[in-house]
Amino acid sequence: MTLIEQMGQAARIASRQLATAGELKNDALKAIAGALRQNADKIIEANKTDLENGKANGLSASLLDRLMLDQKRIDGIAKGVLEVAALKDPIGDVISGGVRPGGLRITKVRVPLGVIGIIYEARPNVTADAAVLCLKSGNAVILRGGKEAINSNKCIANIMRDAIETAGLDKNCIQLIEDTSRSSSTELMGLVGYLDVLIPRGGKGLIRAVVENAKVPVIETGAGNCHVYVDEKADIEMAANIIYNAKTSRPSVCNAIETILVHEAVAEKALPAIKARLDEKNVELRGCERTAAILGDCVVPADESDWETEYGDYILAVKVVSSYDEALDHIAKYSSGHSECIITDDYKAAKRFTEAVDAAAVYVNASTRFTDGGMFGLGAEIGISTQKLHARGPMGLNELTSMKFVIEGEGQVRV
Amino acid sequence: MTLIEQMGQAARIASRQLATAGELKNDALKAIAGALRQNADKIIEANKTDLENGKANGLSASLLDRLMLDQKRIDGIAKGVLEVAALKDPIGDVISGGVRPGGLRITKVRVPLGVIGIIYEARPNVTADAAVLCLKSGNAVILRGGKEAINSNKCIANIMRDAIETAGLDKNCIQLIEDTSRSSSTELMGLVGYLDVLIPRGGKGLIRAVVENAKVPVIETGAGNCHVYVDEKADIEMAANIIYNAKTSRPSVCNAIETILVHEAVAEKALPAIKARLDEKNVELRGCERTAAILGDCVVPADESDWETEYGDYILAVKVVSSYDEALDHIAKYSSGHSECIITDDYKAAKRFTEAVDAAAVYVNASTRFTDGGMFGLGAEIGISTQKLHARGPMGLNELTSMKFVIEGEGQVRV
Repeated sequence: MTLIEQMGQAARIASRQLATAGELKNDALKAIAGALRQNADKIIEANKTDLENGKANGLSASLLDRLMLDQKRIDGIAKGVLEVAALKDPIGDVISGGVRPGGLRITKVRVPLGVIGIIYEARPNVTADAAVLCLKSGNAVILRGGKEAINSNKCIANIMRDAIETAGLDKNCIQLIEDTSRSSSTELMGLVGYLDVLIPRGGKGLIRAVVENAKVPVIETGAGNCHVYVDEKADIEMAANIIYNAKTSRPSVCNAIETILVHEAVAEKALPAIKARLDEKNVELRGCERTAAILGDCVVPADESDWETEYGDYILAVKVVSSYDEALDHIAKYSSGHSECIITDDYKAAKRFTEAVDAAAVYVNASTRFTDGGMFGLGAEIGISTQKLHARGPMGLNELTSMKFVIEGEGQVRV
Repeated sequence: MTLIEQMGQAARIASRQLATAGELKNDALKAIAGALRQNADKIIEANKTDLENGKANGLSASLLDRLMLDQKRIDGIAKGVLEVAALKDPIGDVISGGVRPGGLRITKVRVPLGVIGIIYEARPNVTADAAVLCLKSGNAVILRGGKEAINSNKCIANIMRDAIETAGLDKNCIQLIEDTSRSSSTELMGLVGYLDVLIPRGGKGLIRAVVENAKVPVIETGAGNCHVYVDEKADIEMAANIIYNAKTSRPSVCNAIETILVHEAVAEKALPAIKARLDEKNVELRGCERTAAILGDCVVPADESDWETEYGDYILAVKVVSSYDEALDHIAKYSSGHSECIITDDYKAAKRFTEAVDAAAVYVNASTRFTDGGMFGLGAEIGISTQKLHARGPMGLNELTSMKFVIEGEGQVRV
C-alpha cells in the first residue's frame, strides 16, 4: 500500500466518525481558528522559506503576492474559519419525504460526501479555507497543494491537525500530501475507492489535467469566458456601467467578462458610451470590423482566438451583432457556461435569454461579478462549478454533501 | 472529425432545441409509442437476426431471453413510453430562490443536463427506455448498446428518430452508435465537450471499465452487496419474512441481499427460523463457524470472498456477530453502498443505524427490494446510483437534470 493509499484509508476511517460528529465539528473549527492565530509566527516563518524559494526560482511579483502570508492575512483566515463555524450545519437536513402506499416512510436526508480531495496551486490560504469547509460539511479532506507553498501548507495543516485532535476529532480528518511531485497528483486522481470527489482549484491547465486524467469523480471549476449582450432595447448608461464593473472591478477572476456583444441597432450610440467608461481603466478593446468602423483606430482587430480567450486582464473583445439570435449563437458557441448577461428593457428579450442561455448564472441587467458564494448568500464558497453534474455555479456547504434515503417500515416486503 | 464526434456535435445542437421544447417533448413521446406499436413486426424481424446470431455464438438461455422481443414485450415498451409522457416535466421547476440585499432576485431553476451517453449491454428495451427518459427530461442522448442486440437497437432507434422528427423535434435528439467495437465505446467515454454525463447500465465489468476509463463525468450504477442485520431486539418472524423476500423474490437484481448478520443473542432462535423460510427456495447458506454450529452441516463454510460477493443467485452468506458495532463495521467494510437493513424493535438501535450506515438506502424493518424508482414514487428509473456525487439511489427524471441561477436586477453592480 502506497503512502497516498494509506492516507486514503485513514481518511475513510476518519470520515466515518465525522459523518455523525455534530457539534464536535464546530468545536474543532473554533480550535483551528485559535491555533492559527496563536501560531501565526510559525506560519510566517515557514512562509518566508516559500517566498525565498519563490524569488530564487523567479516567480512573478503577482505570484509572490498570492503566496505571501502576514499577520493580517492569517487573521483573515482565522476570521473566515469562525464564519464557517457559525454557518448552519447542513448534515441531517431533511430534503424531502413522505409515506408511500403500503405505509413505508421514506425520508431523503443530507449526508456528507465522505472523503474529498483538493488539488490546488500557489495560495496557501486554500489549505485552511478548503479544509474547514470540508470539515464543517462532515467530510474528511486530502489536500494536495502546489510546491511553491509547501512549507506554508505543511505548517498550516499540522496546526489544524493538532487543533482538531485537541477538540476530540481524528486528526486524519485533515491530511496534506507533502510530496509535490507530479506523481503524487496523478496518484490522488486515481484513488478510486477512497475519494468520493476531487476538486481542482487553480488555472485552466490544472483543471484540464485533472478532468482528463482523474479516475475518481471530479467537479470542474473556474473557467469563465463570460459575455454581456447589449440588446437593441438596452438602457445604454446601465450597459456602460455594468460592463465597466464586470470588466474592471477585478479582471483576473472568473466572473469578469471577456467579450461584449452589441446589437447593431444601438451600436453607434452604445459603443462610444461604453468605451468612455472603460477608458478610465485603459481597457484595450479588440473588436470586429464594425466595432472598428464606429470606434476607430483605438480598436485592435479581433480574430477567432479573441472570442475564445479568457484574458483575465484589462482587455475586452467587442462584437457588433446583427440580431438577438446571433448573440445567442455566439454565446452558445464560445461561453464556458459560467456567467452570461443581457442588458435590456424588453420583457420578452429578458425572459427568452434566461431560458435559452445555458450557463451556471444567467443575468438580466446586473453585473456578472455577483457570481460568488458570498454574494449569492451561500455563506462560503469552495469554488464555482462550470459543469452540470452535482453542482453548478457557486458551491457552498450543501454542494459538499450527498444524500441518502431512510426507509422506515414495520415488516413490509415487496410483492 | 470522427463519426462519434460528429454525433456529439449533432447531439449538442439538438439539445439546444430540446432544452426549451416544453410540450413538444410529450408529442414526440406519444409519437414514439405509436410508432413502436405500428412497427412491431419490423422490430421482431430485426430481433430474430439478433437471436439467431446469439444462438450461433452460444449465448446462454437466460441471455437469449433478455434479448428476445415479442409483441407483448414491445407493447410493454410502448406502454412505458406513454407512462413517461404522463409524468410531470421537471424542466423549469423553481428549486429555490429569493431576493438578496441590494435587490437582486436570484432563482435556482431546473434545466436539462444537455447530452447524455448511455452504454449498455444485451437488453434492447433499454434503447427505448433510456431514450425516452432522456427526452422527457430535455436531454439529447447518444446510445451505445451491446453487439448482441445491435439489429434490434438499430431498428428501434430508427423508428424513434423518425417518430420524433414527425412530431417536430430534431431527430438527433436520439442517436445510436452502430459500431459495437470496443473502440467506439472508448471514444464515447472520451467525448469531452460533448457529453455532460455518461451512464453505464449493465454488469460489474462494464461499469468498472466505464468508471475507470471515462474522461467525461460518469454516474456509477448498480453494484449491490446488500445486508440485513438481525438485531438482538429483532422480531424473529419479521426478520425471516424480510430476509426471505429480500433474498428470493428476485435474486439477480441489485437490491437483493447477499449477506445477513445475526446478533449472537438471538442467533440460536433466529437462524433456524430464517433457514426454514429460505429452504422453500433451496437457498444455499454460506456461514461462519458459529452459524454452522447452530445450523449444522447444511452450511457451506464461508470465507473472506463470501463477504465480498454479489451472488445474484439463491445463495446467502450468514455471519453471527458478537455486537451491534461488529455489524456496523462489517457493513462499512463490505457494503457497496446500495441498500442496508436493520431488523429491530429497539428505538435507539434503529435510529443509530439510519445515521451511521453509509448507503443510498438505509432500511428499518422493511425489505431492501423496495430500492427502486417506481417503489420510491419517482415514476420511472434510469438506474440506481451507488456513487455519492449528483445522484444517489434510484434515479428518476430529476436526476437527469441540472440547474442554473437566474439573476434579475435593474443595474446592480458589485462594489
